[in-house]
Amino acid sequence: VSSVAAAHLNLTTLLVDQQGAAIDQLGSEAAVLLTPAHQFPVGVPLSARRRAEVVEWARDAGAIVIEDDYDGEFRYDRHPLGALQALAPDRIVYAGTASKTLAPGLRLGWLVVPSALSDAVVSAKTLADRNSSAIDQLTLAEFIRSGAYDRHVRRSRLSYRRRRDRLLAALERRAPHVRVSGIAAGLHALVELPATWSEEDVVARASARGLAVAGLGSYAHGPHQQHRAALVVGYAKPPEHAFTGALARLLAVLAEGEG
Amino acid sequence: VSSVAAAHLNLTTLLVDQQGAAIDQLGSEAAVLLTPAHQFPVGVPLSARRRAEVVEWARDAGAIVIEDDYDGEFRYDRHPLGALQALAPDRIVYAGTASKTLAPGLRLGWLVVPSALSDAVVSAKTLADRNSSAIDQLTLAEFIRSGAYDRHVRRSRLSYRRRRDRLLAALERRAPHVRVSGIAAGLHALVELPATWSEEDVVARASARGLAVAGLGSYAHGPHQQHRAALVVGYAKPPEHAFTGALARLLAVLAEGEG
Repeated sequence: VSSVAAAHLNLTTLLVDQQGAAIDQLGSEAAVLLTPAHQFPVGVPLSARRRAEVVEWARDAGAIVIEDDYDGEFRYDRHPLGALQALAPDRIVYAGTASKTLAPGLRLGWLVVPSALSDAVVSAKTLADRNSSAIDQLTLAEFIRSGAYDRHVRRSRLSYRRRRDRLLAALERRAPHVRVSGIAAGLHALVELPATWSEEDVVARASARGLAVAGLGSYAHGPHQQHRAALVVGYAKPPEHAFTGALARLLAVLAEGEG
Repeated sequence: VSSVAAAHLNLTTLLVDQQGAAIDQLGSEAAVLLTPAHQFPVGVPLSARRRAEVVEWARDAGAIVIEDDYDGEFRYDRHPLGALQALAPDRIVYAGTASKTLAPGLRLGWLVVPSALSDAVVSAKTLADRNSSAIDQLTLAEFIRSGAYDRHVRRSRLSYRRRRDRLLAALERRAPHVRVSGIAAGLHALVELPATWSEEDVVARASARGLAVAGLGSYAHGPHQQHRAALVVGYAKPPEHAFTGALARLLAVLAEGEG
């Protein structure tokens, strides 16, 4: 959002429902940024129908779709979705990252851009920081080439899947009044709170117990985005030894009810 | 230069003489970028008088001086000059880099900014690339803390000083018709050619022999910058085993005379 503002672009937002972002709200925009594999923060994938719709829109409008595949490596319950980008390589910029699979501090990601945009993207990157650390890039390239990166992703996927299953089982048992969604993929779940609860109160009580869970409202842009009271619960970050304790504290917060 | 243009700023340039940049040409500019320790590419330091002048100008004009200390670690024949920044920390941004001491591919540098600019600089860096690689930063910090960085710089300084001395001795013996300057510091020398020679021809002949030396003219901005025919000869880049051969090829080019 701050990047868009700094570039003096106008930002509009799309509503999100169970099919993902509402593509039919797009009009004369020059570009749309989507997270098709796992909408952030709601966690739904973009439906097959909406995927076709956004490609059609981009072709008709001469617009660009930016596919931010921020956590596409982590899918648990279904076959991997192909990248949206493959449907229209001349209209879609694909963005991948090592931030979730390795560490955000690496600052390494990759773009697949329509060839017509390639020179402009290279120029913009050059102006921003000349280039990313050559040593880090070469190290990652060797990590990928050797197969160790794939092994690491597979190992991580299994580990995160186990965490997700533990989170789901614990919530079902100990907090049956919440509803969990967005869990087929990624590293976070959306935990919907009962309608009478205050999201802000629950976030504050979680924070008091040392849990950095965000309220869904903190991701809303614009006044029209009414939303359910919900927590965005990331389960990838605590180190292995701290996960059980963090889960117990989350359950305690949710068991307290309305506070 | 491309960064300045991209930011929609107007760029003016200062003449450079044997005292460094001509500070008395500054007027209502918002900022000036200087290389006070070793003007790039001419190689002269900014004189003590000019250093005082630019601080006075910045105070009077409410302007900012950016001190690009790109190679300040490498001084050979005189006591280190203090950073200009120390004369007016509220007006001067100091910029250092690991590009010359370690490698440009690291993409690590550092700024000392007036406190009034600190928030704006942090925001601009965040927008540009969020931050530099945390792993690289931590590695460099440990390298500095352990003392290994200082040892490396001292060892490099001795090695580069020997290269410079070999370059000077060889030119004096084999190419007495050129004049060498800018050699008290840094990693390059300015080699002035006889007045009748064409800089472009000499650069082309050097290139044909696999030498990437630049003509002084390639650094000129604006039509008013008349300059002597000269080569900017960097002596840090060839690996140790290739330096003798590179030096021999340079001497051969200069021995050919006007070509």
